[in-house]
Amino acid sequence: MKEPRVAIVGATGMVGQEMRKVVEQRDFPLESLKLLASERSRGQSFDFRGETIDVEVLDEGSFNDVNIALFSAGASISKKFAPIAAGAGAVVIDNSSAFRMDPAVPLVVPEVNAGEARKHIGIIANPNCSTIQLVVVLDPLHREFTIRRVVISTYQSVSGTGKEAVEELRQQIRDIEEGRRVAVDVYPHQIAYNVLPHIDVFLDNDYTKEEMKMVDETRKIMGEPDLPVTATAVRVPVFVGHSESVNIQFAKPVEPAEAREVLSAAPGVEIIDDPAKNLYPLATDCEGKDPSYVGRIRKDDSAENALNLWIVSDNLRKGAALNAVQIAELLLG
Amino acid sequence: MKEPRVAIVGATGMVGQEMRKVVEQRDFPLESLKLLASERSRGQSFDFRGETIDVEVLDEGSFNDVNIALFSAGASISKKFAPIAAGAGAVVIDNSSAFRMDPAVPLVVPEVNAGEARKHIGIIANPNCSTIQLVVVLDPLHREFTIRRVVISTYQSVSGTGKEAVEELRQQIRDIEEGRRVAVDVYPHQIAYNVLPHIDVFLDNDYTKEEMKMVDETRKIMGEPDLPVTATAVRVPVFVGHSESVNIQFAKPVEPAEAREVLSAAPGVEIIDDPAKNLYPLATDCEGKDPSYVGRIRKDDSAENALNLWIVSDNLRKGAALNAVQIAELLLG
Repeated sequence: MKEPRVAIVGATGMVGQEMRKVVEQRDFPLESLKLLASERSRGQSFDFRGETIDVEVLDEGSFNDVNIALFSAGASISKKFAPIAAGAGAVVIDNSSAFRMDPAVPLVVPEVNAGEARKHIGIIANPNCSTIQLVVVLDPLHREFTIRRVVISTYQSVSGTGKEAVEELRQQIRDIEEGRRVAVDVYPHQIAYNVLPHIDVFLDNDYTKEEMKMVDETRKIMGEPDLPVTATAVRVPVFVGHSESVNIQFAKPVEPAEAREVLSAAPGVEIIDDPAKNLYPLATDCEGKDPSYVGRIRKDDSAENALNLWIVSDNLRKGAALNAVQIAELLLG
Repeated sequence: MKEPRVAIVGATGMVGQEMRKVVEQRDFPLESLKLLASERSRGQSFDFRGETIDVEVLDEGSFNDVNIALFSAGASISKKFAPIAAGAGAVVIDNSSAFRMDPAVPLVVPEVNAGEARKHIGIIANPNCSTIQLVVVLDPLHREFTIRRVVISTYQSVSGTGKEAVEELRQQIRDIEEGRRVAVDVYPHQIAYNVLPHIDVFLDNDYTKEEMKMVDETRKIMGEPDLPVTATAVRVPVFVGHSESVNIQFAKPVEPAEAREVLSAAPGVEIIDDPAKNLYPLATDCEGKDPSYVGRIRKDDSAENALNLWIVSDNLRKGAALNAVQIAELLLG
């Protein structure tokens, strides 16, 4: 493919809109862009490279003239329409969880396992947001110092849930300000001025699906099916940007300075780590930016060869849209 | 002491006011209550058991008729006035960090090491808020299963900083709502819609003082000077209630059900752990309540004999005022 015909499915959602922006910003070479969404979005249109593109309603015929289809409309839409798109000859890059753990579907973070993308049979899965920003940091450290165990606690923004969650946080803040009763709809509890140790549904092992995505997807992307990883996923009242407190034990000795050296050469990673100047990665600083930011890199004396660090990235961008477009770029040329 | 004469130093601060309320609510037997604060608070008064008590300005003569002095006015006030109060014959219960790591000063959480209180020579230290809610959970588990290592990430509310931080969060939220530039004063960065991996000052080892308090104080209270503990302390835009994601490795095998059994019998601890009903401890639910709440108790398969859990408590109450009054109760009788 030199100049593919591209479609975005779920084009009016937060990630879908970010996909359109990233395609534009990166000068992604394409012959045409089709914006697909549900009946509800009929009549909407968006500017793209100086033209106005009308949103089309997704149906089974939508993919007949499409080479690359970027899906971000939820797992049920992907389950139904990704095989249809692939059957029509498009390569699907799917941001939902529908196919991520399917052994026949590559799960790709280009900085980590770009080679996997070539093995696709019509569908490539885009990992979970909190996993992507994590593995671009873990993988280079693993190659140098061999990771033995990872313990993660997340601080995830409401934009990871979608537009309705962003609006719920805004509305709850206004309700509290004006003394009204707080309405709870998108989340099971008030998110304003609160933190919820609950993202996605609970599974039989009492972990949430989000927590197990971080475990399972990290292992698959890094090609380490038994890597010991455990996670606690927490929603915080932040609009954009996921933060992660990450504790890593290594097989080999590692000093913070050595980790910094490795990470400063790692693609997709930027270090912000100057405590004396109060500099560390922040959710409010990462919006609209590409890297996975890492800081607070310090030796953990509670275990042999261990480090603590703090990872922050724009969950709509590297955590979703940017990574999907980077996968699409692997298909070019 | 049967009915001591009690003074609260820093009586107009958030913790000082909570101390007055806790003394009242617990029917703490006292002959008199003196409210002390700085010159700035002159003229304020508070109701206590149906009477109005005027705030007095703290000076070197304030403690001549006092048996128990509850200090919560910051480390520099404690350093100056706690020895004066102790010299005048009062027992000081100090909520600041001034004396916590002094080997001659007991650091007490009554549920864990009440016996230490008896060893005081005039001053007893009240631990850091995020430490107290942690050790009431760790200690019973340690006695049963022998803790080998603890990894903590915190989600700490702005009331832990004080009134000015609560006001800064409120003001930043209003500024953003009304499109004004956000002013940053109490914290080095915007706290509204953000999370800051920075509490208290940075030390030479690149940990914050708050993080090292959690390590050092936990060891001292539990009487385990070498217990492997590491922490990442994070400020979140929550008004009251500190939450903690805690990963614990044990020497002995432990099932979540066994941990629940031990914790359900532990004083000061309450379990909220029913994922099927979306029940887990929440900051917004703990305000004004006494227990350290624990939930999300689950097996961590990334290490032998490991658990993850989620601990939440009112940082002004068990994290400060309540624990101080409980220490005072140990001195009665």
